[in-house]
Amino acid sequence: MPLLKRPIGVFDSGLGGLTVLKALHQLLPEESTVYLGDLARLPYGNKSAEVVCRYAHEAANFLLGHSIKLLVLACNTASAVALEGLQKRLSIPVVGVIVAGAMEAEKSTRNGRIAVLGTLGTIRSAVYQQALLALNPALRIVAQACPLFVPLVEEGWLQGEVPTQVARHYLQPALEAEADTVMLGCTHYPLLAPTLAAVLGPQVRLVDAAMATAQHVAQLLRTHALLAQTPQPASHACFVTDELERFAQQAERFLGHPPEGLSLCKL
Amino acid sequence: MPLLKRPIGVFDSGLGGLTVLKALHQLLPEESTVYLGDLARLPYGNKSAEVVCRYAHEAANFLLGHSIKLLVLACNTASAVALEGLQKRLSIPVVGVIVAGAMEAEKSTRNGRIAVLGTLGTIRSAVYQQALLALNPALRIVAQACPLFVPLVEEGWLQGEVPTQVARHYLQPALEAEADTVMLGCTHYPLLAPTLAAVLGPQVRLVDAAMATAQHVAQLLRTHALLAQTPQPASHACFVTDELERFAQQAERFLGHPPEGLSLCKL
Repeated sequence: MPLLKRPIGVFDSGLGGLTVLKALHQLLPEESTVYLGDLARLPYGNKSAEVVCRYAHEAANFLLGHSIKLLVLACNTASAVALEGLQKRLSIPVVGVIVAGAMEAEKSTRNGRIAVLGTLGTIRSAVYQQALLALNPALRIVAQACPLFVPLVEEGWLQGEVPTQVARHYLQPALEAEADTVMLGCTHYPLLAPTLAAVLGPQVRLVDAAMATAQHVAQLLRTHALLAQTPQPASHACFVTDELERFAQQAERFLGHPPEGLSLCKL
Repeated sequence: MPLLKRPIGVFDSGLGGLTVLKALHQLLPEESTVYLGDLARLPYGNKSAEVVCRYAHEAANFLLGHSIKLLVLACNTASAVALEGLQKRLSIPVVGVIVAGAMEAEKSTRNGRIAVLGTLGTIRSAVYQQALLALNPALRIVAQACPLFVPLVEEGWLQGEVPTQVARHYLQPALEAEADTVMLGCTHYPLLAPTLAAVLGPQVRLVDAAMATAQHVAQLLRTHALLAQTPQPASHACFVTDELERFAQQAERFLGHPPEGLSLCKL
């Protein structure tokens, strides 16, 4: 396949990476994409760095088999622990969701106080905290693991008393620290944004990494002269390691339309 | 190793099976045990039957390598989908948690109305419903998947407003059906028992499968003349596929003491 026509590979443990896929489709409509969701082993957030690295390398190998020209780790946990190793091993550009998200959050804050929300794995790895402090060492950062947010999203339980109570619990440190910016450090969390915004109030800005990551990808493709030549019809494929039907149903909630070219695969 | 001295193998996707291990230690203190928790791939409840079967067979092979004389699938999802296949393939007795639990629930009910709580996988497989109806076709059964209960337990968030609200949500069908018995169809759920009991009221009995399963194991060992000859010191080992330290911390909450002979393994 000619290099420029090759697809962008997007990898996540499950559905969350679809928020990044959607942003890529919006920003780069001429680019083909291959999405891989490792539903057979999700979630990654409660697993060790070693195991998550192994899974991410297996996923990268699968997507390389589909001739991708750039790899997006659209999973915060994988970005946190596997990005550097993959960048060293692969000859194509590899993009995580963390640096782009951190830059967006740093641009957004006015009082220098940022709260980071994420899975247990992401928060324990402290990658968002490190990425933010690398941008501006004077930032004051509070970090909070929110293990109940992913199951709430996957249940479709996005509003009402229980999500609000859970959000209040997890956002307490952000409110106490008077953060004016809350970084959604997990690709599932944007679906809870209305509930989180209601708890936080209008003075706090929510930053999600999806669009920031898509912009980073566009820039990299330009730098590496890898942008698809228009006009060509973009093609999209979507692979999952398990739960094809449930993925198809839930993907529509993330993408706004059914996923294209969906099939089952094994890593 | 002499047959009678061989250990009992206990397998779960994570921590929940420790409630069964604890019941075995109480009921059969002279028996050695080997526990395997597949933390690298948990939870099983949201994965397909095919994938859970593959994982269960890999776990059984690992435990057979430790010379077990009997295998307990202390995971409701694995019992639901992998028990029959393992019973056919292995030459040792294989015990699930479902039949024993169903018998206990059927004995407990006075008005013939039973509510079954479990993971998405267990409830969709309808194994508890089928096991109960096989015992008594006149039973009226309501089944409710409770995907938030496992993360609540693993967060240690067992009491207070959020667990109570979540419990109220999931127990609504049980209350409306006027069930007098609620079957805890997941080995994590006993840790939420005080909160569930408070929502249900004193007239409703909670049935957990751990002790019922241990009694079933004792009976099978007797029938197959496999009971350990006393006096011999029992030895216990515990393997996890990931997160050794977090397992060690949380296991104490399940067992009442630290786990013995804990080490990391790969399936």
